[in-house]
Amino acid sequence: MTILENVRGPRDLKALSETELGELAEEIREFLVQAVARTGGHLGPNLGVVELTIALHRVFESPTDRILWDTGHQSYVHKLLTGRQDFSKLRGKGGLSGYPSRAESEHDVIENSHASTALGWADGLAKARQVQGGTGHVVAVVGDGALTGGMAWEALNNIAAARDRPLIIVVNDNERSYAPTIGGLANHLATLRTTDGYEKVLAWGKEVLQRTPVVGTTVYEALHGAKKGFKDAFAPQGLFEDLGLKYVGPIDGHDIRAVESALRRAKRFHGPVLVHCLTEKGRGYEPALAHEEDHFHTVGVMDPRTCAPLAPAGSPSWTSVFGDEMVRIGEERDDVVAITAAMLHPVGLGGFAERFPDRVWDVGIAEQHAVVSAAGLATGGLHPVVAVYATFLNRAFDQVLMDVALHRCGVTFVLDRAGVTGTDGPSHNGMWDMSVLQVVPGLRIAAPRDADQLRAQLREAVAVDDAPTLVRFPKESVGPAIPAIDRVGGMDVLHRDEQAQVLLVAVGVMAPVCLQAADLLRARGIGCTVVDPRWVKPVDPALPRLAAGHRMVAVVEDNSRAAGVGSAVALALGDAEVDVPVRRFGIPEQFLAHAKRGEVLADIGLTPVDIAGRISGSLAVRRQAEAARAGAGAVAAQAGAVLEEAVAVPVPADGSQGEN
Amino acid sequence: MTILENVRGPRDLKALSETELGELAEEIREFLVQAVARTGGHLGPNLGVVELTIALHRVFESPTDRILWDTGHQSYVHKLLTGRQDFSKLRGKGGLSGYPSRAESEHDVIENSHASTALGWADGLAKARQVQGGTGHVVAVVGDGALTGGMAWEALNNIAAARDRPLIIVVNDNERSYAPTIGGLANHLATLRTTDGYEKVLAWGKEVLQRTPVVGTTVYEALHGAKKGFKDAFAPQGLFEDLGLKYVGPIDGHDIRAVESALRRAKRFHGPVLVHCLTEKGRGYEPALAHEEDHFHTVGVMDPRTCAPLAPAGSPSWTSVFGDEMVRIGEERDDVVAITAAMLHPVGLGGFAERFPDRVWDVGIAEQHAVVSAAGLATGGLHPVVAVYATFLNRAFDQVLMDVALHRCGVTFVLDRAGVTGTDGPSHNGMWDMSVLQVVPGLRIAAPRDADQLRAQLREAVAVDDAPTLVRFPKESVGPAIPAIDRVGGMDVLHRDEQAQVLLVAVGVMAPVCLQAADLLRARGIGCTVVDPRWVKPVDPALPRLAAGHRMVAVVEDNSRAAGVGSAVALALGDAEVDVPVRRFGIPEQFLAHAKRGEVLADIGLTPVDIAGRISGSLAVRRQAEAARAGAGAVAAQAGAVLEEAVAVPVPADGSQGEN
Repeated sequence: MTILENVRGPRDLKALSETELGELAEEIREFLVQAVARTGGHLGPNLGVVELTIALHRVFESPTDRILWDTGHQSYVHKLLTGRQDFSKLRGKGGLSGYPSRAESEHDVIENSHASTALGWADGLAKARQVQGGTGHVVAVVGDGALTGGMAWEALNNIAAARDRPLIIVVNDNERSYAPTIGGLANHLATLRTTDGYEKVLAWGKEVLQRTPVVGTTVYEALHGAKKGFKDAFAPQGLFEDLGLKYVGPIDGHDIRAVESALRRAKRFHGPVLVHCLTEKGRGYEPALAHEEDHFHTVGVMDPRTCAPLAPAGSPSWTSVFGDEMVRIGEERDDVVAITAAMLHPVGLGGFAERFPDRVWDVGIAEQHAVVSAAGLATGGLHPVVAVYATFLNRAFDQVLMDVALHRCGVTFVLDRAGVTGTDGPSHNGMWDMSVLQVVPGLRIAAPRDADQLRAQLREAVAVDDAPTLVRFPKESVGPAIPAIDRVGGMDVLHRDEQAQVLLVAVGVMAPVCLQAADLLRARGIGCTVVDPRWVKPVDPALPRLAAGHRMVAVVEDNSRAAGVGSAVALALGDAEVDVPVRRFGIPEQFLAHAKRGEVLADIGLTPVDIAGRISGSLAVRRQAEAARAGAGAVAAQAGAVLEEAVAVPVPADGSQGEN
Repeated sequence: MTILENVRGPRDLKALSETELGELAEEIREFLVQAVARTGGHLGPNLGVVELTIALHRVFESPTDRILWDTGHQSYVHKLLTGRQDFSKLRGKGGLSGYPSRAESEHDVIENSHASTALGWADGLAKARQVQGGTGHVVAVVGDGALTGGMAWEALNNIAAARDRPLIIVVNDNERSYAPTIGGLANHLATLRTTDGYEKVLAWGKEVLQRTPVVGTTVYEALHGAKKGFKDAFAPQGLFEDLGLKYVGPIDGHDIRAVESALRRAKRFHGPVLVHCLTEKGRGYEPALAHEEDHFHTVGVMDPRTCAPLAPAGSPSWTSVFGDEMVRIGEERDDVVAITAAMLHPVGLGGFAERFPDRVWDVGIAEQHAVVSAAGLATGGLHPVVAVYATFLNRAFDQVLMDVALHRCGVTFVLDRAGVTGTDGPSHNGMWDMSVLQVVPGLRIAAPRDADQLRAQLREAVAVDDAPTLVRFPKESVGPAIPAIDRVGGMDVLHRDEQAQVLLVAVGVMAPVCLQAADLLRARGIGCTVVDPRWVKPVDPALPRLAAGHRMVAVVEDNSRAAGVGSAVALALGDAEVDVPVRRFGIPEQFLAHAKRGEVLADIGLTPVDIAGRISGSLAVRRQAEAARAGAGAVAAQAGAVLEEAVAVPVPADGSQGEN
């Protein structure tokens, strides 16, 4: 039995010798490489925090002490040490989450995968403890990359405000977020990292300076009188201590004993303290270290020895289609520039950056800044393309509305990973954009259905210079081209039955799903028109008239049912006095557990079978209602009965709830 | 003629002597006090930037140089100096905006009134200039309070990243946002303010230390080698210079000559530079300086001599009803705590803070932190109430969704200034919350219609400990109590005609509007039911059945028509197979120019006359359609004709467009 297998919980770590701890670290690294190669997942970040995590669990008493993991993909080691060693279905349905999960363990707190949140959580937990007179430490582990996010600053400012409220911040400094950390902060951290000699200067300097007079006092006192501690004058931890945080470091994050010693010092301190640990992303695994781009931040299923991907290489990804087209656009227009929030390669801007290095900016994990600086760039005469995962744009909603839209800036947002993404779990799904952004005046939203449409609509988007535009597409491979058979207004008609009863409005990637649903309905004798609106916001002016020729409109979107394209279509129809019933198909109002995209879609009933079943059920209810009306002649009196029928919508044969 | 009257533009400032500049400053202060007393507006902040604004316009060449005002309410002096001296209708319909406005002047850039944006805009403008090889300086003026916002940090980090990209940040440090600035940053700025003697230390220290050996080098070189400039070791501007920004200051912001000198130094510097100006909010106006709470941040119409309000004292404000109830709740439950983002008094938490000083936190202008720290507080066992203006919660949408809702935290959000606020202009309206938040799983939203309901629903909200709740109410005075005549499900029935055709769903403060609309409709022979849903999210399960007894449902909300309560009601009806047509009344998808609330509501057709007119028009269209159907027997064939009719909805007698 390995040492790791004997660690059932943090308590078991405490009895281990230094040698055993070293062996445990080795075992964990080996386990991580093998396990993550089998399922895919976050590898580099976890290889970097092996010793740090061991030390944390030896010094603190989780869960009485609360250990908070910022951007929880660095919690695999924590999972292994808190009784979760079955990684066989990591990120898969029914398996371990790729992030902390309160359902899995009492040792977990924050499930949100968005960065820079842990310090704010820690501030709240520390305040609650203070109010209630509780005990236990609050420890937040945050990467240097996450410190570039505004939330981290807001939290630091508040944490530092209360010098008597204990709270421990561990900065896991690997010089990277996904990509190398950028900005003034990164330079400052670099300064801290390169000055391990300052302790010697410190010891010497104090003695000398205390005897040296200056303007009637000593340098030491002058500095002290200036409310600037002596140590700070010689040690470059300035930024954090200027704010009022005690600074401990820099510490070699792979030296368990050194980390433990620093954490114990921090634990004894009666106020906010920051422990600066230097770690290496991908530590101990040569292929990761050799991978310049991201040190194996995430990997797919692969051979752990050769690192060759074991999943079949499918058709090009949506990301690469976007990335390639951006390079072409960049060649044609020198005013087109690009912005990424610490995700240059994942959002497909690597090629653009290589070709036009002066026209792309990585702003750090700082979506707010990505968007507000885009407003400035547009006002300055350029056309910025802000490429970001759909879920992360939520961070910058206010800036999209107030800075870009209010000022009618020509900014193009490109949302990758829109819709159900699956294995990364609830906070990584990009399922809110087409709802939340409905209120943004002047914004135009495109949801391309295939690669050709993505290219075309991206070009249409960047051609708009007096309003924001947005192009959204899902994760994974782009499917085959779906030809249009006709055009109505700006919409592509994909399919048309004779005497169609149902208008299926297929949003973007839902086009093939709608075409299949139409096949199923036709088999039941219900003809359909399938239309891809291409631009879903604003609603195409031709849609109400088209809808008026049908008995029912079904809007199908890879987005929240609440407030989404379905809502916009219903509003447009009502405004045009077209009262054809609208049924909305999309993601229900719930957070989605991790599973493969297809599994999630099946679970929430976003499949051709479910959609066709629900539509035919609805049509049946309407026929009954019309028959009842015709019989009784009075709408109001019969409504109750109609409703009773409605509640009994036929459940599709596959047993799903018909809850869409 | 006064000197001010002779200033038609920035150019006219350049010829003025020092004495004349002093007189001009006096004239501007007198003008501001008289003008703002007449209309109401932001007084304290503008009295504080008189000399600073004069100096800016003497040193820089606007609009070639871009001067950006963060949180634009400090732009009145800028307006006076750029050709806008008619303040008679300030913030009123057709008058000057209370913020910068590109429609008013080429000297204005940012219209957004939300804080902490200017640095991000400046970064974008400076980058655009660099890419295009343009000329002209970019100058951002930002308050110390706004530096507590995360956007400011994200921008500083990016600005500092490029040491060769000129950009000037003027920190207007008056030690306050609305309230005194909080946190570690405030402490650091205080350190900077109290150390004007450091220049002497500096001059002396360099000479001494250069001759002093230490560990084989000199202290000076040791520090230098540590990538920490010598000056920084002795001057406490550490935080900014640590990031890589040149720091100039602190400067007396009321000494025009000193400010000009600092700005000229900054202008010559070929990189990012921060000029730290100390100013006094309310400068030169005794009543403002004596007003501890906010130095007359904003004032209503008042007697400029006595400062007595000249508007009649109406009924209590919604804010005070909330504030008083919070104190009572706080007395009953010691786990209820409160959070404000730099707006303790404006959101009504003054009384709570006085009574329970250890249970309220001002987090600075940091809505993200307000919300994420609330998640921590809730997880720690408390029930936080986050009180914020509705428009500002947009800043924290991601935190509401990911930190509070995903973790099912019992946090109550209280949104003041929800709906149309009016005179503060487009970015201050709180008209998006009930749309944007529709997607948040588990969130419950209350829109109380009167003071009793606010008290009751606030109590219902804080009683929920496993999900977020939200209570929203408008600006201004609370109206008379509106009794319920019945209850259906959780909804209050406010009015019911025999054989009602129309169900009016009155959201919160729209209750009296709906009751009046019902009167108008009854006069036209159309009976109505008026229901206040109380909780608008989730939609009351009893609503579909109630709706089924009517020929039309009209949802009336002081919120965006897109994606709002109307959308949720339509979705719930469709899910229940109730296809009664829904008409949504609310705020159209546009930004609203400043004017009084009533004027705005009239402009957008959110009045009883408009609503009644539109509903009766819709019913007429339906009657025609039904007649046509009965005649022709075919739905599809007639739909085109119906639509033609629909387009010709009767325009209300008052000439409004009927665009709701």
